[in-house]
Amino acid sequence: MFEDVRVVSFDADDTLWHNEQYFLDAQKSFWQLMEKFLPAQASEALMNTEVQDIELYGYGIKAFILSLIEASIRISEGRITSEGINSIIELGKQMLDKPVEIIDGVEDVLKLLAGRYRLVMTTKGDLLEQERKLKKSGLTDYFHHIEIVSDKNEGEYRKLIQHLDISPEQFLMIGNSLRSDVLPVLNAGGFGIHVPYHTTWEHEKIDHIIVHKRFVEIASIKDLPQLLASKS
Amino acid sequence: MFEDVRVVSFDADDTLWHNEQYFLDAQKSFWQLMEKFLPAQASEALMNTEVQDIELYGYGIKAFILSLIEASIRISEGRITSEGINSIIELGKQMLDKPVEIIDGVEDVLKLLAGRYRLVMTTKGDLLEQERKLKKSGLTDYFHHIEIVSDKNEGEYRKLIQHLDISPEQFLMIGNSLRSDVLPVLNAGGFGIHVPYHTTWEHEKIDHIIVHKRFVEIASIKDLPQLLASKS
Repeated sequence: MFEDVRVVSFDADDTLWHNEQYFLDAQKSFWQLMEKFLPAQASEALMNTEVQDIELYGYGIKAFILSLIEASIRISEGRITSEGINSIIELGKQMLDKPVEIIDGVEDVLKLLAGRYRLVMTTKGDLLEQERKLKKSGLTDYFHHIEIVSDKNEGEYRKLIQHLDISPEQFLMIGNSLRSDVLPVLNAGGFGIHVPYHTTWEHEKIDHIIVHKRFVEIASIKDLPQLLASKS
Repeated sequence: MFEDVRVVSFDADDTLWHNEQYFLDAQKSFWQLMEKFLPAQASEALMNTEVQDIELYGYGIKAFILSLIEASIRISEGRITSEGINSIIELGKQMLDKPVEIIDGVEDVLKLLAGRYRLVMTTKGDLLEQERKLKKSGLTDYFHHIEIVSDKNEGEYRKLIQHLDISPEQFLMIGNSLRSDVLPVLNAGGFGIHVPYHTTWEHEKIDHIIVHKRFVEIASIKDLPQLLASKS
């Protein structure tokens, strides 16, 4: 199935290293801060703020913190104090300062595959934040090319495949998001491998099941080398 | 002087389109908002907040707004209301929504040079914000390659020159910042052309005069084609 593959492209957040958990932790701290103002449905209000803001702010911690500040004003009906806002800014600074925790098995997989394939990292989000995480991860040298895009869509994958000077069936993408890492790659003619993370951000969920000849789901990134080596 | 040049690389903000003025306008609105709290030296405090935050937040509007929110709390000694903070967030949203105003003469220059050189846009800052401005500008098609980096330093220019598959003396960069567009390019072996903008952000100022055989300063981007065509 994979005999033509030349480039293996990895999503970064929640595929190579833990990420979503930090956002969930920050949201938890945020809710503690909001407790005194808390009306019903507030959690939903925050989710709505975030998704509205994606188009304007994009992905990443700075966008997230601006959304939390906005949500705090809305949820508290203006009663949040500057001290409260400052706590939210501090949450953001702590997130930006967090060490990178590599997901179990990742480095062994990269080591094993580096000799056989060109490895690429393809991630969306804030340029500075993603570069910083890559540097902290110590994984830079495994990658032949790093691609940081503002959004992962079919067009961006087509451009990447062209830039890498390969044909679509030589391109394989692995990641935890069906919406960002799998579907647009299948549409662009490449292989999409889904490796679910234990939490998936609301915005990344899709509501149907994928059946496609170039799609496989694996339980752990550790299963990737064996999958690629399989004959059928 | 320029006979070897193959690639002409343009800075974007305040070289292709107006940018700094929007930040200055937002700062002015910010000071109006701060007036009731205003101690002496407050302007300096804001500048300090911004430069401190660059390392953590990077460049761009989201970073700027987070810095303004922080500064507003510090300057008001916590007396700023959530309404005040909301006004700052609105300033940011207005900035993100602004149309792109191309600097006088830019499009003619690009049109003229596009047939003779490979044109590149090299800009630092927030990926999404820069992509959005490029799209709004309508200038995308003039460029053979777009490079958005988190910071413009010698190493990034060397990587770009390598990526473009040229030698350093075939690379020319033009921009309004000596610090970002000229000095690191000269150090990387390329040509640096300075075209000053009427305001230069404090952080971008350098405190010495450049004398270098591959450096020229021009008054307007309109002078670039003639400069490149000059024999001496």
